[in-house]
Amino acid sequence: MHRISSEHEHKILNENSRIAEHLRAHFADHNILCLNIISAPGAGKTTLLERTLESLPPETRVAIITGDIQTDNDAVRLARYGFPVKHITTGGACHLEAPMIERALADWDLDDIDVLLIENVGNLVCPASYDLGEAAKIVVLSCAEGDDKPLKYPAIFFKAELLVLTKTDLLPYVCFDIEAAEQNAHRQRKGLEVVRVSALSREGIAPWLEWLGRKRDAVRPAAGAVA
Amino acid sequence: MHRISSEHEHKILNENSRIAEHLRAHFADHNILCLNIISAPGAGKTTLLERTLESLPPETRVAIITGDIQTDNDAVRLARYGFPVKHITTGGACHLEAPMIERALADWDLDDIDVLLIENVGNLVCPASYDLGEAAKIVVLSCAEGDDKPLKYPAIFFKAELLVLTKTDLLPYVCFDIEAAEQNAHRQRKGLEVVRVSALSREGIAPWLEWLGRKRDAVRPAAGAVA
Repeated sequence: MHRISSEHEHKILNENSRIAEHLRAHFADHNILCLNIISAPGAGKTTLLERTLESLPPETRVAIITGDIQTDNDAVRLARYGFPVKHITTGGACHLEAPMIERALADWDLDDIDVLLIENVGNLVCPASYDLGEAAKIVVLSCAEGDDKPLKYPAIFFKAELLVLTKTDLLPYVCFDIEAAEQNAHRQRKGLEVVRVSALSREGIAPWLEWLGRKRDAVRPAAGAVA
Repeated sequence: MHRISSEHEHKILNENSRIAEHLRAHFADHNILCLNIISAPGAGKTTLLERTLESLPPETRVAIITGDIQTDNDAVRLARYGFPVKHITTGGACHLEAPMIERALADWDLDDIDVLLIENVGNLVCPASYDLGEAAKIVVLSCAEGDDKPLKYPAIFFKAELLVLTKTDLLPYVCFDIEAAEQNAHRQRKGLEVVRVSALSREGIAPWLEWLGRKRDAVRPAAGAVA
């Protein structure tokens, strides 16, 4: 996020927060778990979502919004799994904003959705500043990047509730100390949960789905409660 | 770069361009080759610079400016090679801006520099919008990312004069079609030069240094010319 100190940016962020709170209230009313997934370009967000969608029972009511500056490649990849997918082409914008999400949702019936997964624009900086009304942010870091990334991009590691360390199958071939990466992430946020995933070998997909299920249960109305 | 359409952003970019032109004139006066190196986080900019600095004769008058949101890790890594290095911690800003470069240069004697290498903040979006007075932008893309990145982040591939494809040693282990990546880059900019580099095996370092030498020669005053 740049020029955060300017009055103009504060105005944009305030307006974004207002709409995000509005979305959050809507999601709560409809018992929807909304997750905002953020990473650098090429960290493997879309592949993680592919593994997720192919593992879910077809009756799971998941919907996906993808954001990219150009192309709807990710949305096309994800639409193959049969769940509703919408794509936002941001044009010049380096992140998704709450009003974009509000517009994308306009012709979806929220009563048909249990989990809304938002794949943000590939950018480890600016998306951290824009609340989209999500229940939690998830940061995705690939083992092909560097284990000091949580120190260099502190905001997103401070704000996320889960760190997904992807491409663990590459660990034998790269200089990446996975323990150091986790320690650096915990310096930004004590207690940040971590799952280690290889989309290739599918190792770690089960703990990731387990985390997703737990989050889902937390927003579901208690059994027997009156809706 | 976000909110480019707003009057406020235009004002910032105009002011940035004014200072960048001022820097460009200074660099020309002093026969300095200035290069602005841009990539996603973890694409291998710093490692490429390490291989570069260790390959240069000590009499080469290279100086380096690194930018990061937090930490001076990159500058510390690069300072070991004995060339002057300055670090800019941008705080919240997701890119370097021309006034930051102007301030960083204030106490360096430009007559002592032949090549100025600027390692921008790890971000494939916003740095593309900010001219730093460079002779050329270089975009670095790692083979651990995706071969469709030039389609998804068109601006930087359109503006760069050289694409450095890094981490080619990982090609056997990743789904990355290097020919497709180059074709996608050439869809953004016909004639974009490409070098393929493995910092691990050092393959491709020679063609990269050869490109650097050619660019250096282009700004050097002709032999026998009166300064």
